[in-house]
Amino acid sequence: MKLTLKRIGIDAYRENIAFLDHDELKKFSVGLHPMDRVEVSANDRKVLAVLNVAEGTTVPSGSIGLSDSAFAKLGVESGTTVDVRPADPPKSLEQLRRKISGAHLLPQDFVNIVDDIVEGRYSKVELTAFVVAATMNPLNDDEVYSLTSAMIDRGEQLHFNGSIIADKHSIGGVPGNRTTPIVVSIAAASGLIIPNTSSRSVTSPSGTADTVETLMNVELPVKRIKELAASEKGCLVWGGALNLAPADDLIIQVEHPLSIDSESFMIASILAKKKAAGATHVLLDVPTGSGSKAETAERAVGLEQRFRQIGARLGLNIQVMITDGSQPIGNGVGPVLEAKDVLKVLRNESDAPTDLKERSLYLSGELLEFTGRAPPGRGRNRAENLLQSGEAYEKFERIRNLQGRKELIALGTHVKEICARRSGRVNAVRNRIITRTAKLAGAPRNPGAGIYLLKHVGDSVDDGELLLRIHSESEEALLFAVTYWEEHAQGIEIV
Amino acid sequence: MKLTLKRIGIDAYRENIAFLDHDELKKFSVGLHPMDRVEVSANDRKVLAVLNVAEGTTVPSGSIGLSDSAFAKLGVESGTTVDVRPADPPKSLEQLRRKISGAHLLPQDFVNIVDDIVEGRYSKVELTAFVVAATMNPLNDDEVYSLTSAMIDRGEQLHFNGSIIADKHSIGGVPGNRTTPIVVSIAAASGLIIPNTSSRSVTSPSGTADTVETLMNVELPVKRIKELAASEKGCLVWGGALNLAPADDLIIQVEHPLSIDSESFMIASILAKKKAAGATHVLLDVPTGSGSKAETAERAVGLEQRFRQIGARLGLNIQVMITDGSQPIGNGVGPVLEAKDVLKVLRNESDAPTDLKERSLYLSGELLEFTGRAPPGRGRNRAENLLQSGEAYEKFERIRNLQGRKELIALGTHVKEICARRSGRVNAVRNRIITRTAKLAGAPRNPGAGIYLLKHVGDSVDDGELLLRIHSESEEALLFAVTYWEEHAQGIEIV
Repeated sequence: MKLTLKRIGIDAYRENIAFLDHDELKKFSVGLHPMDRVEVSANDRKVLAVLNVAEGTTVPSGSIGLSDSAFAKLGVESGTTVDVRPADPPKSLEQLRRKISGAHLLPQDFVNIVDDIVEGRYSKVELTAFVVAATMNPLNDDEVYSLTSAMIDRGEQLHFNGSIIADKHSIGGVPGNRTTPIVVSIAAASGLIIPNTSSRSVTSPSGTADTVETLMNVELPVKRIKELAASEKGCLVWGGALNLAPADDLIIQVEHPLSIDSESFMIASILAKKKAAGATHVLLDVPTGSGSKAETAERAVGLEQRFRQIGARLGLNIQVMITDGSQPIGNGVGPVLEAKDVLKVLRNESDAPTDLKERSLYLSGELLEFTGRAPPGRGRNRAENLLQSGEAYEKFERIRNLQGRKELIALGTHVKEICARRSGRVNAVRNRIITRTAKLAGAPRNPGAGIYLLKHVGDSVDDGELLLRIHSESEEALLFAVTYWEEHAQGIEIV
Repeated sequence: MKLTLKRIGIDAYRENIAFLDHDELKKFSVGLHPMDRVEVSANDRKVLAVLNVAEGTTVPSGSIGLSDSAFAKLGVESGTTVDVRPADPPKSLEQLRRKISGAHLLPQDFVNIVDDIVEGRYSKVELTAFVVAATMNPLNDDEVYSLTSAMIDRGEQLHFNGSIIADKHSIGGVPGNRTTPIVVSIAAASGLIIPNTSSRSVTSPSGTADTVETLMNVELPVKRIKELAASEKGCLVWGGALNLAPADDLIIQVEHPLSIDSESFMIASILAKKKAAGATHVLLDVPTGSGSKAETAERAVGLEQRFRQIGARLGLNIQVMITDGSQPIGNGVGPVLEAKDVLKVLRNESDAPTDLKERSLYLSGELLEFTGRAPPGRGRNRAENLLQSGEAYEKFERIRNLQGRKELIALGTHVKEICARRSGRVNAVRNRIITRTAKLAGAPRNPGAGIYLLKHVGDSVDDGELLLRIHSESEEALLFAVTYWEEHAQGIEIV
């Protein structure tokens, strides 16, 4: 049937949704029902969308509304006449159903599933079913390899000149673990080519890209990234702008509300993005311990093996570093607060957080050895020299200026100081409670929001001594964060 | 934060969604992100909703939009000032995660999950995860019993006077299998109390309630249902208006797009609705065979045992009749077309479809014996007498007049005749293709749409002989149905 397209400005988190007026649906007398699929086409383009019923003025009579992502995919103006017809379910539904019934899937199955995901043909129902099925009937290494390959092929891919193209990534889960800008600066200063692509926060108070963005522009076109890799050996950009392995973001959006952290999807996600970004050598930081993503040493070691083996099949050299992930790193949690920590380390300031500095040097040293920029056993020393000589900071500042320098904004001025209610020794600082509090305070959307943490495990505290400051950009957000913190008084455990 | 409530008229298929303007979200500087949960409250009521981001005029600055179901739950006018704050995930998420990780759940877990589902606290992501988890890690009998009990408790319940309250239900999947109005008329004529509550179509071209609704009003208040049970011994009403086991409909809406037909959910759904509707004795028609819900005899027998055992724990006497479900029943598929078949049988017309009549008599006979209205071996004979004497039709007409008589509307006037392309014998009539074609033609929303089927398995046909007519209420819908039919030429297989 012919209808007039209307952009109704609903994001729907990238789900393709078509909104049709209740009476319109009746009038046209076609066999369409809410939650059915429709194909909307104009000129030579078409999108598959899930039908929602609207009433009132949102979708006028004779019109069809599309969610933002579907609207963008169709690529025609509001007001264009479009053709709407019933559509079959996505082609890969049969493969998804086989995964649910316990089967292992073949490479072509993943190609079909990833294609349907990227084209927005999977609603949240199918996406969730895929994630839960692959969690309960776990993907084996062959399947992870197939999924990863399909994700790479179904997005953009970068290529750099050079036989060794390095990158560095942490699997995440530890607030304040912002080593990447420091490691990239040291490595690029050593001459290693390391065009770093990082992500924004999904579940954390700040992703590497969120933190770096407080200091410089991170959305660069591919041409500029290649120029930076050639001239400076490194860059610090947001990978999300580059459409690398785009299926990944859609999978993550349903894992998140379920708190599902599927090992297989994590491996596929990281390897696909790094391979698509043109890396040949990738150093992975795998934090382990209570409250991190790999809670036990066994899981960390299992992950290491899978990363290396599947990476090798993709032509990627993977070095996994298992690190302590049982508590936050540094003092700052939140974009600006973390950026301040990073700058202090790069500038060799006396109050630079020691844990962040030590971890950055450790990872840098391993990366230099792994890529042949330092002889075995000499990497850490070489990294320390590059940091202390100021070469790493100089490199960082050159990259910052070339990407488009920004100055740090002020911290959120609505502040709550949290003090100890007893004397003793800090026994635990819980990643998840720190993370949730910082997010409620507004991080990362409000870059000046977050937590400044003064105490770590093992520190002694006096009754009434300051433990942390919560920064917000509004009184209301501060109240949400403080209320949450107070209801979870074991965020910092003192014994 | 305080915002002005706006009803934006989006159905979202009963998911609680809050729509907030992109700039508004920034302005308030609170830690809220798309897909987060928010609690929206006004006076003493509150709803939990998933946050979606809107842009443009749909949600004006300073406002928050709610999807229809969330709006109705909150129960205040558009324009009311509401309080919006970040909320934790639904309480039962932890239990859902345990099911995903392979555990069996306890009775209280199902109480919590069903409560979150009914209150709309589960988005489609959690609902889908629950359905897929319970499919892959199947519910055992204890779990089905717990789920069923929780579903009953979390909705309305009817109670009738009488020690035997009967009902009848088919598990579905077979187009045209519209025995219920006939069986209920015969049973009520025999003096059995049978206040039948049926459902509208979910995946079929017509539910019992859709068909009956073409002949009489099916939305009756509880008081009228009780009066009919007392005066006429029977009624034919839509159960959906009564809020019996409301979690069920929400579970079904995500099973449907995935074509998941979980045995456990089906048992829970049927037993919960029948128990909540006040039944003590339930006759279940379980069609078996290719293209039906219980494709093999083994599955049908397994189903029978589970229905009986779990039913017994709920205090329900269950009689399961395993019938042939390999092809459509009767001539009509679609609300009006099926109603015509039902009337022909009740009126003992000479061209009444024999298969529908025979099946109705068989099921009625078993029901009369099972409930003690006929001695063993005499039920079928008693049923036949009640039908042929006109007593069943008289009962039907009394119920029809008391519920609110309607006259049948005309069949859809846009008609396509489908003829055989070869001579031979009908080897198969495929339920799924007949179903999908009738739905594309407009059934059940357009009651006059559907299929009139002239041939069944075993019939001989000549080249060019009429096989079926497709009826639609618009040319466009007819085209959709015909196109689908022609692309699936094996809807009727002739050998």
